[in-house]
Amino acid sequence: MRSFEPGGSAVVVGAGGGIGAALVSGLLQTEAFSSVWALSRDGDTGRDGRLRRGRIDVGDEPSIAAACLSLSLGVEQGAGPIRLVIVATGMLHRPGMQPEKTYRALDADALMLSYRINAIGPALVAKHMLPLLARPGRAVFAALSARVGSIGDNRTGGWHGYRASKAALNMILLNLAIETQRRAPDTLVVGLHPGTVDSGLSRPFQRGVAEDRLFTPAHSADRLLAVIDGLGAGDSGRVLDWSGQVVVP
Amino acid sequence: MRSFEPGGSAVVVGAGGGIGAALVSGLLQTEAFSSVWALSRDGDTGRDGRLRRGRIDVGDEPSIAAACLSLSLGVEQGAGPIRLVIVATGMLHRPGMQPEKTYRALDADALMLSYRINAIGPALVAKHMLPLLARPGRAVFAALSARVGSIGDNRTGGWHGYRASKAALNMILLNLAIETQRRAPDTLVVGLHPGTVDSGLSRPFQRGVAEDRLFTPAHSADRLLAVIDGLGAGDSGRVLDWSGQVVVP
Ligand SMILES: NC(=O)c1ccc[n+]([C@@H]2O[C@H](COP(=O)([O-])OP(=O)(O)OC[C@H]3O[C@@H](n4cnc5c(N)ncnc54)[C@H](OP(=O)(O)O)[C@@H]3O)[C@@H](O)[C@H]2O)c1
Ligand SMILES: NC(=O)c1ccc[n+]([C@@H]2O[C@H](COP(=O)([O-])OP(=O)(O)OC[C@H]3O[C@@H](n4cnc5c(N)ncnc54)[C@H](OP(=O)(O)O)[C@@H]3O)[C@@H](O)[C@H]2O)c1
Repeated sequence: MRSFEPGGSAVVVGAGGGIGAALVSGLLQTEAFSSVWALSRDGDTGRDGRLRRGRIDVGDEPSIAAACLSLSLGVEQGAGPIRLVIVATGMLHRPGMQPEKTYRALDADALMLSYRINAIGPALVAKHMLPLLARPGRAVFAALSARVGSIGDNRTGGWHGYRASKAALNMILLNLAIETQRRAPDTLVVGLHPGTVDSGLSRPFQRGVAEDRLFTPAHSADRLLAVIDGLGAGDSGRVLDWSGQVVVP
Repeated sequence: MRSFEPGGSAVVVGAGGGIGAALVSGLLQTEAFSSVWALSRDGDTGRDGRLRRGRIDVGDEPSIAAACLSLSLGVEQGAGPIRLVIVATGMLHRPGMQPEKTYRALDADALMLSYRINAIGPALVAKHMLPLLARPGRAVFAALSARVGSIGDNRTGGWHGYRASKAALNMILLNLAIETQRRAPDTLVVGLHPGTVDSGLSRPFQRGVAEDRLFTPAHSADRLLAVIDGLGAGDSGRVLDWSGQVVVP
């Protein structure tokens, strides 16, 4: 991660997830960040060398605000200015809630829940964390989106709640990028498609995915960190996939 | 409206709105439909010649189901098969809730409400009304979207909740179109951008809109009905504006 000024901090929100955990490991392997915050809904808290663990529930704004207070305190106490935030939370299914195969399965509560987790969650994280990003100097706010959130790419339909919430997330990320471009032109905001990755989220839907197309979380995280490292000013507001290709809206 | 087989019914959901009311008038002026249902959250119910008034709250699924029961009964009693549904509901602001000018104004409850009205509402209407559309023969399910719901067209940012909910709506409409194409290829599903129209929704935001760009509801409704009349099979899943131009995702 050579594009970031050394000595800064990176934050992963959703560090308990398949990809989130791999992003934390990948960030610890690079020398680019002197601290890596791993925030998750549950799990340990506390410090272990460059790793700092903390709690966050992206469905609960006070919990996001509390996490940001810890980040600010950490920065004051020398953790290094925050140069990278990656939101790696998300939901496709839950016990009793499967992605819709037909419009006849549309359910208001399930649609609301997907929206709350996949769109509003990252939006509220941005509301509280964008102001904490280091200035001047290069900074990145990235959120994991999904190729199926692309309207232009949708040929097969289905998964209404997930698709709609990710399309909404992509709109919100573009809005954040436009506003950030005015206030802090060195800060970039992007959505990322991690590929199809072997995690709890994709597990029920991996049949039919060719083996060489199913990434390990570690592989996806490596690619995503390389994409983040290579981002240019013109990429802000875009969704990019693990190979750096633009995902059309 | 020559493209529809004569003798059918048309349904406007949100008939109390600026554009919704104008659509009802426009539909009554054409001879294409032997019945026009005007469904709104409140207002009169009952029959008056070709006009049939009823209630619907798109935020409440039982109310949508109840409205559909009345539609089905009407069809059984000779109102004519349903060939056109237009969802003209929507929300941009409320007392105490203004569209966001900055990400610092993001609010979970406001985001949820916009999503519930603008995306989930039309989705649930589709869930219950698509199965009622006449088959075989041409039928159209249209929902009023908005150009600001286009990611590709977004240069200015702001209005996060409204933009995101309309982007999500556009995704859901495409999903509906894909599924409908398989089951009922003569049924088209589209989103429509009505232009900037003088209504309660746009009133606080009309400053700066050139006078000849601010449509009366009647003008917009006329143009939208002409666009609906001219829809081809390839348009299903798209968002079209009042002039028939495609709005990019
Ligand atoms: N895997 C894929 O193939 C794939 C493809 C495209 C996009 N993506 C996207 O990649 C991202 C990461 O997915 P993943 O594959 O790593 O799935 P995952 O293993 O299920 O991780 C998702 C994480 O999000 C967390 N989360 C959910 N709700 C939360 C909340 N309210 N507060 C805090 N954390 C919350 C979960 O925490 P809990 O464990 O506490 O619930 C979980 O750790 C998601 O945005 C997903 O949509 C994944
Ligand atoms: N006007 C414009 O410039 C413009 C531009 C782009 C897109 N649009 C879209 O066009 C559509 C119509 O807007 P408009 O300009 O006609 O605005 P409007 O006059 O405010 O009409 C909106 C209507 O939606 C109804 N509605 C809201 N929530 C409802 C619910 N839960 N159940 C049933 N009805 C509900 C409202 O009913 P109540 O009166 O009972 O609240 C109102 O009648 C909207 O989707 C809007 O986003 C308008």
